[in-house]
Amino acid sequence: MKKFLNDPGSFVDEMLEGIYKAHPAVTHVGDDLRCLVTAKVKSGKVGLATGGGSGHLPTFLGFVGDGMLDGAAVGGVFQSPSAEQMLDVTKHIDQGAGVLYIYGNYSGDIINFDMAAELADLEGITVRQVVGNDDVASSIVGEEHKRRGVAGIFFLYKAAGAAAAEGLPLDEVTRLADKARQRTRTMGVALSSCVVPEIGHATFSIGEDEMEIGMGIHGEPGISRKTLAPADAVVDEMMERIFAETDYQAGDEVAVLVNGLGGTPLEELYILFRRVSQLLEARSVTAKHVWIGEFATSMEMAGASISLLHLDAELERLIAAPADTPFFQHIAG
Amino acid sequence: MKKFLNDPGSFVDEMLEGIYKAHPAVTHVGDDLRCLVTAKVKSGKVGLATGGGSGHLPTFLGFVGDGMLDGAAVGGVFQSPSAEQMLDVTKHIDQGAGVLYIYGNYSGDIINFDMAAELADLEGITVRQVVGNDDVASSIVGEEHKRRGVAGIFFLYKAAGAAAAEGLPLDEVTRLADKARQRTRTMGVALSSCVVPEIGHATFSIGEDEMEIGMGIHGEPGISRKTLAPADAVVDEMMERIFAETDYQAGDEVAVLVNGLGGTPLEELYILFRRVSQLLEARSVTAKHVWIGEFATSMEMAGASISLLHLDAELERLIAAPADTPFFQHIAG
Repeated sequence: MKKFLNDPGSFVDEMLEGIYKAHPAVTHVGDDLRCLVTAKVKSGKVGLATGGGSGHLPTFLGFVGDGMLDGAAVGGVFQSPSAEQMLDVTKHIDQGAGVLYIYGNYSGDIINFDMAAELADLEGITVRQVVGNDDVASSIVGEEHKRRGVAGIFFLYKAAGAAAAEGLPLDEVTRLADKARQRTRTMGVALSSCVVPEIGHATFSIGEDEMEIGMGIHGEPGISRKTLAPADAVVDEMMERIFAETDYQAGDEVAVLVNGLGGTPLEELYILFRRVSQLLEARSVTAKHVWIGEFATSMEMAGASISLLHLDAELERLIAAPADTPFFQHIAG
Repeated sequence: MKKFLNDPGSFVDEMLEGIYKAHPAVTHVGDDLRCLVTAKVKSGKVGLATGGGSGHLPTFLGFVGDGMLDGAAVGGVFQSPSAEQMLDVTKHIDQGAGVLYIYGNYSGDIINFDMAAELADLEGITVRQVVGNDDVASSIVGEEHKRRGVAGIFFLYKAAGAAAAEGLPLDEVTRLADKARQRTRTMGVALSSCVVPEIGHATFSIGEDEMEIGMGIHGEPGISRKTLAPADAVVDEMMERIFAETDYQAGDEVAVLVNGLGGTPLEELYILFRRVSQLLEARSVTAKHVWIGEFATSMEMAGASISLLHLDAELERLIAAPADTPFFQHIAG
């Protein structure tokens, strides 16, 4: 296992120590490093919280900051944080306007966030939830509730974060986050495995010339494993599945996220985006906002995902708004 | 070779097509995709140009934008661009105030930039040059002119870019870039090889449990190859070499860049920074500005580098200034 670490058991906490040293804009609740919150809670604003396992940086905690999220509960690598940690984050960020949870559709996270919401309610804090399920590969159309949340959750954070920063009330922030959820689709492809520090070996094996279309960000099985195809053919197959269940019309606008899973060079992500751009142009769909880089990783996994958000006027306004977090800055205009 | 690509021979140009589609803030000179320039040249300002081989994204071209560079000549993977391409970039960005070249200390680049500077002079454009040589591992003290330029060149871009944006004249921008150069030191460590697309196999082999301290970003030999040590011990060894040839005093400030070489997860870079931070604190040196992520990569190479810039008042002002490029945003304050 080739990793820069000291003790596998302290991997997450040492990472967090580094994050707090590097980024004074975030801090933790009490002495629990795993309850990460913005250092300057804004009064009156709807609070936005997320959470989930570690190993996906900059997801989840990296998007806590101005114009995005207010707090994140941080789990072990690929493990859900506890309901208590989520509750501590919730209580810290609540300013009386309520709190919206946005997180990925994984059973452990759902159980814990549900429990945290109940406990928060007992303390008089109104909580709403939007559960990201953008991964097209993880179930058929009609069973979207079974789909995993992957990189496209970035668009939910961005839209809801901008809405909350505008001062919109909880129900409206929730409506907009849910609208972004409904209009986001992601397809991924993996070329290599990740290594969980406490396990110390590859999570799965994959042949030297193979790719797995639709693999999840923890190594969950995808749709098909086959010989690695040329980049354009890989993109064509991924985009075909996204196009099949969206209703883009000529003249429509989308936001595009080409996300690296950890081990894939940035150069290759741009080669993938080149083809995405060609396919959108062929349908006269405009890529109005484009982000390319690592947004939701799976440690050192080689691979990529493509997320599309179908914009309308209000989502475009929110996606375009400025943001300033330790791991993501966006200068409007 | 597990890469997202179509034809290895078109790797760089397809990457560039993706970059131009994604980032309308940059464009190319005439029909040569490899002459990348800002889409909005600012009149009267000193022009800043860089260049070098591909395979290091976001270095070099990623830092063309507001508050940083104006143009970059783009070579093949790990190959110098031509003098003609550098000249075309120079002519495009020159606004009568002269042009400063900032690039890494590699013989091919030096030959071509020297020739471009001579040709520019014949056309009445004043050119100055600052050649980055921050890599401590590549020669002994006293022979710094033999040192390679690696990730620390980011600080030269940032300082010179801010100085040019302030409207300072060519000699002053050059002085500040050179001051940043003199005060920047980098140490790197590699855990795995990169794969050049047109070659198709690993550039070098390294054992499953080995690291190479001081390896260059093209796989140039380092100082020592040994068994991978715990993260803190790796950082201690790297920082010891940096401390040995700097004169930080208690109360001094530095800017820190912990750079991933391509294949190393962001989580691990924060574990490295945690130790960097401890060592600086032990000397009462403040990490005033911190960037952690991928800034100068070597394709999919696993590994990291640590760069330190010894700040003074004027360098701090320039490093803190805002910047907005396709691959790097910095919101001041």
